[in-house]
Amino acid sequence: MEMNLYARLADQLADQIREGVFRVGDKLPSVRQMAKKQQVSISTVNTAYGVLEDRGWIEARPKSGYYVRKRNEDRLATPTQTRHTPKPRPANTSQLVMEVQRDAAARKGVSMSAAIPALDFPILKQVQRTFAQMARSKTFLGIGYDSPEGVREFRHQIARRAVDAGVFISPECIITTAGCQNAMALCLRVLTQPGDIVAVESPCYYGLLQMIETFGLKALEIPAHPQTGLSLEALQLALEKWPIKVALTVATFSNPIGSLMPDERKAELVKILGRYDIPLIEDDVYGDLYFGDHRPKAVKAFDPDGRVLLCSSLSKTIDPQLRLGWVMPGRYFEAVSHRKFINSIALPTLPQMVMAEVLSQGMYDRHLRQARECYRQRFARLLDLVNEHFPEGTRISRPQGGLVAWFELPRKIDTTQLYHRAHAEGVMLAPGELFSISGQYRHCFRLNYAQGWSPERELAVRKIGQWVREELQSS
Amino acid sequence: MEMNLYARLADQLADQIREGVFRVGDKLPSVRQMAKKQQVSISTVNTAYGVLEDRGWIEARPKSGYYVRKRNEDRLATPTQTRHTPKPRPANTSQLVMEVQRDAAARKGVSMSAAIPALDFPILKQVQRTFAQMARSKTFLGIGYDSPEGVREFRHQIARRAVDAGVFISPECIITTAGCQNAMALCLRVLTQPGDIVAVESPCYYGLLQMIETFGLKALEIPAHPQTGLSLEALQLALEKWPIKVALTVATFSNPIGSLMPDERKAELVKILGRYDIPLIEDDVYGDLYFGDHRPKAVKAFDPDGRVLLCSSLSKTIDPQLRLGWVMPGRYFEAVSHRKFINSIALPTLPQMVMAEVLSQGMYDRHLRQARECYRQRFARLLDLVNEHFPEGTRISRPQGGLVAWFELPRKIDTTQLYHRAHAEGVMLAPGELFSISGQYRHCFRLNYAQGWSPERELAVRKIGQWVREELQSS
Repeated sequence: MEMNLYARLADQLADQIREGVFRVGDKLPSVRQMAKKQQVSISTVNTAYGVLEDRGWIEARPKSGYYVRKRNEDRLATPTQTRHTPKPRPANTSQLVMEVQRDAAARKGVSMSAAIPALDFPILKQVQRTFAQMARSKTFLGIGYDSPEGVREFRHQIARRAVDAGVFISPECIITTAGCQNAMALCLRVLTQPGDIVAVESPCYYGLLQMIETFGLKALEIPAHPQTGLSLEALQLALEKWPIKVALTVATFSNPIGSLMPDERKAELVKILGRYDIPLIEDDVYGDLYFGDHRPKAVKAFDPDGRVLLCSSLSKTIDPQLRLGWVMPGRYFEAVSHRKFINSIALPTLPQMVMAEVLSQGMYDRHLRQARECYRQRFARLLDLVNEHFPEGTRISRPQGGLVAWFELPRKIDTTQLYHRAHAEGVMLAPGELFSISGQYRHCFRLNYAQGWSPERELAVRKIGQWVREELQSS
Repeated sequence: MEMNLYARLADQLADQIREGVFRVGDKLPSVRQMAKKQQVSISTVNTAYGVLEDRGWIEARPKSGYYVRKRNEDRLATPTQTRHTPKPRPANTSQLVMEVQRDAAARKGVSMSAAIPALDFPILKQVQRTFAQMARSKTFLGIGYDSPEGVREFRHQIARRAVDAGVFISPECIITTAGCQNAMALCLRVLTQPGDIVAVESPCYYGLLQMIETFGLKALEIPAHPQTGLSLEALQLALEKWPIKVALTVATFSNPIGSLMPDERKAELVKILGRYDIPLIEDDVYGDLYFGDHRPKAVKAFDPDGRVLLCSSLSKTIDPQLRLGWVMPGRYFEAVSHRKFINSIALPTLPQMVMAEVLSQGMYDRHLRQARECYRQRFARLLDLVNEHFPEGTRISRPQGGLVAWFELPRKIDTTQLYHRAHAEGVMLAPGELFSISGQYRHCFRLNYAQGWSPERELAVRKIGQWVREELQSS
């Protein structure tokens, strides 16, 4: 991120204000005192205080100093849990997904539609450097195909890190893939035939719904709680009623709603599925991006008999351009490995060697610490902006990790129309229509808050709020 | 390849002998004359003559000079065309493919099982260098996802080169893939449902048979002529009889048999399929590796209405580690692009940028000229060795391009057993069982001749011949 000193200081102070270290009306230390305390220059503190003033955290009182301002209170509610009765149906998510994807790939305007990580962390330069070094020093051509399972050193690093998520696994039981989407596609292909029913949480990441549609499957949308995720009660009822073939979940910081299933519910989920002998595909791609005190356990940590296929990647923690993911397919190891071979024979070895190197060093853990703190603050800033600029009746998720926030607006707002209006004006958001096959979220949208806040991005949020306001008034 | 001067000279002379420029009994120019004529050192000529002597091309007569020896004549017939009546069946190629793949990836012993290019051409170092340079100088992380269709500059290069194969196409009509296998898998997925019948040529590359099996399809094996490929007459009969959904062909240097379908038959093939409105997936991965005077046209060159989906890659012309291929899906563009998105969202951009750079420069064409000449000579050497060391009744293909030769042995030889024996002794070949779902080629095998001949590789061929001889005698 090459984050400037002043920006870092401003963020730290905003954080302290948010946490009540400084309260409304408190005087901040003088510029001189702060410079001495933080061992930075006076101009750095001046700039940091200026940023906080611009953002409405503090105000300057002439000849006195800087004081904490009265802020907009967080007056917004969280999204509601859908209460529909699930029914399996062929997925029907539209060409809209491809449209949104192409719009995002065009990289014009302010993009908040994709669930991609911040693009300004120092790890990106470090990874690029490691690529250049290894491309120069290692022989990665003229060695035939990689094995279907992938490069051993990389799998070894993944196995080591899995311990943090409560998963104890041998590198031999891991298969590398071209990202997490690819891992999920391989698993779903192995576990289903066209016409089969797949249980997903609702709202659900559109990439999975598209996959279900494309593979000729039927999706059964199980309601999810904004805080605790997939409703086990609803799942239980659905299992009684329908011949579900496999369940999919993003149990840790679900996409789009940011929910985190508590450990005991994760354990319970595996037990329930065990009673029906149903496998679970777990997407754990956000697990390392927790805002809390510790890395939540994966569902797979509670899986004694290999029915959980854990899929993940480096796309959310480092960069989606790496196209490097993995799957721990449990009892389905042979089938998934074979499917990978059929699909593309093997992966290139160079990116696996590079990332084995990066993961083996301290830089990745340092990066994760920085990224988590940064995302937490950036969400806090989004929440402030939304409180300030969005109309009454807006609901917004309180993600406990990850990169995205979920908005629920009054029902009369059509967010697909909002998407098109925003896109025309150079702002990209992900319309709610993408996240359901039963049309439940046409009044919702998803926003990426992971990128650094710039005046341009802040303006984009203000504009979205303004458009929503206008829609409400015109209707 | 950093091919040494002496080796090049030896190969050129062997070639001239083969072509009758020097005949049996002819005296070669003296070492001194040759050195002057070729503008090389005397020791270079001495070494080259020594190599030719070792390989049995010439003999030294004391105080006289070097004379062309009587060679083993090419006494071996070409493989027979199968004459079975095709019948669709679920593919059933066994775990043997995965076993062969893992054995090859282990990179022990003399590997002649995979259809991979030579590992010793200078282009590999040039590509590695370009990778290192671009990883250092270009920003390839922090740019979000690539578009589903791929990097424009790379597609532009592919479009330019397609002209040589008679295909005039816009870059906008090309989609990049993770190798040719990946391109074929995407196409087959788009065009079929489980249970559908797919027409393939027989013998058929095992990767395609595995794909057909894994996707729950039925394969209809159409006999192929060792010189002219897929029998159009047999295809016509099959189309009358069975509801074929799609046809697959490697029309230019088929794998494993090396046949080349003549232009007029390629045109006829498209016409026949047009009458039944059936799409054709064309694997053109060997097309640039022709031994003749010019680049054969692709079947797609004769396709007026977009029913041919041409798939190819850089895996056979440069290196399979690149995992970089493409598809020209004709009228199925949108469906294939969407399928790629579902499967893995997008490819990484760096390898596409690197290969756009490599393909835009002269080095790739220079490499292809060198590779074609080299493979032609290496096959000639294989043919010599086989004539010398294999028993009566051995048949061997005369590939007109590509990397592999196909052996047909007397029917009592079981080449799966031969595979296991050879593997135990550190020699890898591809058993015929892999290339058919109806067990037609248990007495055949495929051998890669693309790697440079070393005493170790020559010994491996001699050993295989010896094992075959022993089997014949013992049975």
